[in-house]
Parts: sequence; C-alpha cells; structure tokens
Amino acid sequence: MTLILFAAPAVWPEYETILPAALAEAGIAARIVTEAPDPAAVDYIIYAPSAPLQDFAPYTRTKAVLSLWAGVERIVGNASLTQPLCRMVDPWLTEGMVEWVVGHTLRHHLGMDRHIVNPGHVWDATCPPLARERPVAMLGLGALGLAAARALQALNFPVTGWSRSPKAIAGLPTDHGPEGLDRVLQAAQIVVTLLPKTPETENLLDARRLALLPRGAAILNPGRGALIDDTALLAALEAGQVGHATLDVFRTEPLPPDHPYWAHPRVTVTPHIAADTRPWSAARVIVENIRRGEAGEPFLHLVDRRRGY
Amino acid sequence: MTLILFAAPAVWPEYETILPAALAEAGIAARIVTEAPDPAAVDYIIYAPSAPLQDFAPYTRTKAVLSLWAGVERIVGNASLTQPLCRMVDPWLTEGMVEWVVGHTLRHHLGMDRHIVNPGHVWDATCPPLARERPVAMLGLGALGLAAARALQALNFPVTGWSRSPKAIAGLPTDHGPEGLDRVLQAAQIVVTLLPKTPETENLLDARRLALLPRGAAILNPGRGALIDDTALLAALEAGQVGHATLDVFRTEPLPPDHPYWAHPRVTVTPHIAADTRPWSAARVIVENIRRGEAGEPFLHLVDRRRGY
Repeated sequence: MTLILFAAPAVWPEYETILPAALAEAGIAARIVTEAPDPAAVDYIIYAPSAPLQDFAPYTRTKAVLSLWAGVERIVGNASLTQPLCRMVDPWLTEGMVEWVVGHTLRHHLGMDRHIVNPGHVWDATCPPLARERPVAMLGLGALGLAAARALQALNFPVTGWSRSPKAIAGLPTDHGPEGLDRVLQAAQIVVTLLPKTPETENLLDARRLALLPRGAAILNPGRGALIDDTALLAALEAGQVGHATLDVFRTEPLPPDHPYWAHPRVTVTPHIAADTRPWSAARVIVENIRRGEAGEPFLHLVDRRRGY
Repeated sequence: MTLILFAAPAVWPEYETILPAALAEAGIAARIVTEAPDPAAVDYIIYAPSAPLQDFAPYTRTKAVLSLWAGVERIVGNASLTQPLCRMVDPWLTEGMVEWVVGHTLRHHLGMDRHIVNPGHVWDATCPPLARERPVAMLGLGALGLAAARALQALNFPVTGWSRSPKAIAGLPTDHGPEGLDRVLQAAQIVVTLLPKTPETENLLDARRLALLPRGAAILNPGRGALIDDTALLAALEAGQVGHATLDVFRTEPLPPDHPYWAHPRVTVTPHIAADTRPWSAARVIVENIRRGEAGEPFLHLVDRRRGY
C-alpha cells in the first residue's frame, strides 16, 4: 500500500517518524512517500491544504483524501477531487481549542487586561460578576463548538448554542437559522465564532448583526477569519458597540503588518494558535481511517460536499 | 432575638435588605442592629474582620460569632472570643475563586500576555502545549482549593494537591507535610496558593522552596499575602527562577503605591477580587447557622481554634 503526504515542506518532519509508528501500532504495512511518480499507484492521500496539489484526477486508485486540517474549504470545491474526503477531528486539537476559548472567555469575563496593563497602579477592587451572570453565545456546534460550550457550562456560564440547522443537544439551549442568530446575539455578552467557512457563513457577523449585541460585548473568533466582516467589526469597535475582539484567524495569515487590527487598542491578535493539529494524535486519526478503508468500513469525519464541511 | 452586625460601615448597606429577607425566608424573627448598648442582650454576632470590635467578653449570651469572611486569622487568636466561631463558606465565593484560578492558570498556560501586549506586532505561531502537559500544584485543599483543583482537572491539567496533614481525595493525587511540599513544588509549572494564614503557613513560599520550582514556573496567590516571602519572591523573579507571579492578596491592602510589585514587569496585581463574599449567598449561610443554633444543631463551618481555621 502506498500513502502520499501532501503538505508544506515544514510539515513532513513532524510526521516522518510518527506516521510509520502509528501504522505499525495498527498493524498496517504501507510505504509513505512525498512524491508520486505514478499517481495511479497511490492508495491514500494525506493532505494539508497548504500543499500545492490542485489536480486530484490522476489519483485514480486513491480510496480517500485524508485532511490534516479541520477546515477543508480550500479543497471542498475542487471538481477534480472526487475521492472520499475526510476532515481532521483531532481530540487533542479539540482540547487546545477548548483551552483557548475558555481562557479568553475568562479573560474577558474577569476583565484581566486592566490588571495586566495597569500603568497607573490603580487598585480598583470592583468585583467582576460571576460566570453564571455572563451569557455566552457559541456560534457553531460541531465537535469544537460543542466541546467549548460544555467546558464553559461546567464553569457556570449560561451558554446558548447556535447552528444553521436545528440541533437538539441535551442540557444545552440552542437556537438556529437567521432569526435564531439575531435572538442569540441580542442576549450575549461574549460571542464565540466556531463555524466552518462556507458561502453561508462568510461575513456572518456583519454590521447589522454586530449592532444587535448588548453594548460592550466581546467577540472571540478562533474559527475562520471570513466569518467576520472586518470593516464592520472595526467600526463597531470604534463606536464602543463591541467592547473587545480577540481574533485568532484572519483572511490573510500571517496578519499583514499594516492591518488595523494590530494597533487597535480593543483588538487582541493571537497568531492562529487556538487549535493546532498535534502530529501524534492526528496520525492515529489518519491511520484509523486507512484501517477503515481497507476493512470496507465507513470513513470517520467524511465531508458532506453539499454542505461544505 | 437580637443580631448585631459588626463590619466596616461600607458593608452595612449590602446587607440592609438582604439579611432581613433571608431571615424571613427561613421563618426567623429577629432584629438586626449595628450598635449594642447592652452586649449581654445579643444572640448572634455577624462579623467582618474589618470591624474594630476586639473585646468579645461582654457578649455573654451570644451563641456564635458568624464571620462574613472565609479567613478568620485576625480574630482566631483573640482570647476574649470564647463563643463558637464560624467561617464563611459561600458557594458563590467559591465559584468566583474557581473562575479567577482557572482564568489566570489558562492565561499563564496559553502565554496570553505576549499577545495582549505586543507592541512589535509579532506573529509568532508557536503553539502552547496542551493543559495535559502542564502540571499544576494546588497548595491547600479546603473548600476553595479543592473546587479549583477539580475545575483545573476538568480541563485536563495534571493537578497535585498539597495539604499540611494527609488527605485522601478520590481522583486527585495529593501529598502532604514539609517533604511532600518539596516534592510537589519540584514538579509544578504553575503553583496556586490557597491556604489559610496560620503560623505554619506564613512565608510558606520562601527562598529555599521557590528555588525548588522548575525554572520559569508561575505563581498564583489568591489565598493570603503572608503565604509568600515577598523579598524572596522578588529575588526569584529577578533571577528568572519564577517566570511570573499573579497576586491577589498582600500583607498590606490596598497594595501601597510604592510597593515593588506594582512596577515589576513579571508581576500582575489583582486587587483582592479573586473571591468576594456575595451578600445574598452569604446571608443565607449566616441565617442557616442561626437556624441551627436555635434548633440545637451543630454549626456549619465551625473554626477549629487549635488549627486556626
């Protein structure tokens, strides 16, 4: 069996020893290459969207394209990609995301920044409210959004989840659709955006919707840069309608040095670190899907092309 | 029945309506005063250690002194206080403490400060480790320490608890005694001090013990200022042995304007906000103890004078 790894060159060393070890652990004999003189001989493509590959058509024997990334928007519309496409759902990536979301939610909730940067040495003993008094909106209820919502609930934050289509989740109030989004935003003091990038979610937080938030609400975006209309967000920050935005993802990354987000006093830029795929954990997810493919079992995390994720 | 409230004048308005309401809710008829022309007529003393009262001897009929604070070190050694003394254990205070501890633990864990203050607009996508790779020591396993330890465990932090005397707690590794403290410190990247102030815990984190920490460890002190030898901590911060200290409590509060903690780049001062008694919740705890006193049932949260808490 031949596996090919398509990824930016920097990625390969991370998987060089881990992927063979994960294959050996599962008892699967395979050779791993990074170039394919004969595409028709490749059984599985392990793929990071940072790779230049655009034409999947010659991979006639390939049983699946296994993404190393959770987001597949860069290839889901590729007409030459007719093989089954699987997203990465890495339990450790989920843990990292939950830590980022819970950490920055608590940071905004507790008003940490005024203590971290306090040049006037002001002792202002105003006590923050309790988490149970701080409503949070979780936009997106996939694996990441749901895990983050659960962790925030465990700390007593009243979380309302929102998704495009209705979802019934035990113990988590949810709303859905465009009107549900308006309702959820109106009640949220902290909004977390953890949606995939699709034509429907692009600029989801636009000027009209940002205006629905209670004045001074905070926005955390560890999802996709395109979920937010940047111009509308900057205007809402200027006006004080949005109190603070902590952004981990951007339309262009690294964020260009002259982008207004960098210098804005009410924006915190984190450099796309909310959720990094962890090679050891990711390798096991990849290998499990190869095992399933060989055993004729259904793939995990198969992308629905119509929905885009 | 006569109850007297001894507290700083600012405290009284917080309880003026809440305490009578909590008494009415419990069906207890009592009058609440803030001055006692006849101390021998007082049934219960509701007491904040910010009050000037030092001589409890005239309160011959008083069945209990009910503290509004969790820490009772200012009065536990008062020889005139022979009545039963109860600490405040306020479930909402516990929640606030857990939020502060989890928030600042995640802040240090994720390295948030370098993103919050990033004048050079540096995009450094180095991903933090996962919480499961970040050992935390919880010094103190009372109601607050245990609740904070549980919340950190729920986020996958490997927490080791330490207490003066042995404690067996399901699912939480613990150590105890002076040698146990050395062991726990040697393994901790983040140390949280949530101990009462007693002669044994004063300067618990001294120069010798700070030197045991892995280089660059962070210290969070939401417990009592006296738990840390301030001079030793400043020296350890200067030397880089301690990477950062976030301190909520101090020997003198408010922290004096010229105290070196204010200006130190590796110290964050929070103004004693980690755990504030919430009047409504505290009033119910007070009233429950009055009910118990009247019914001849044992008091909740009775202080052990020998141990000091």
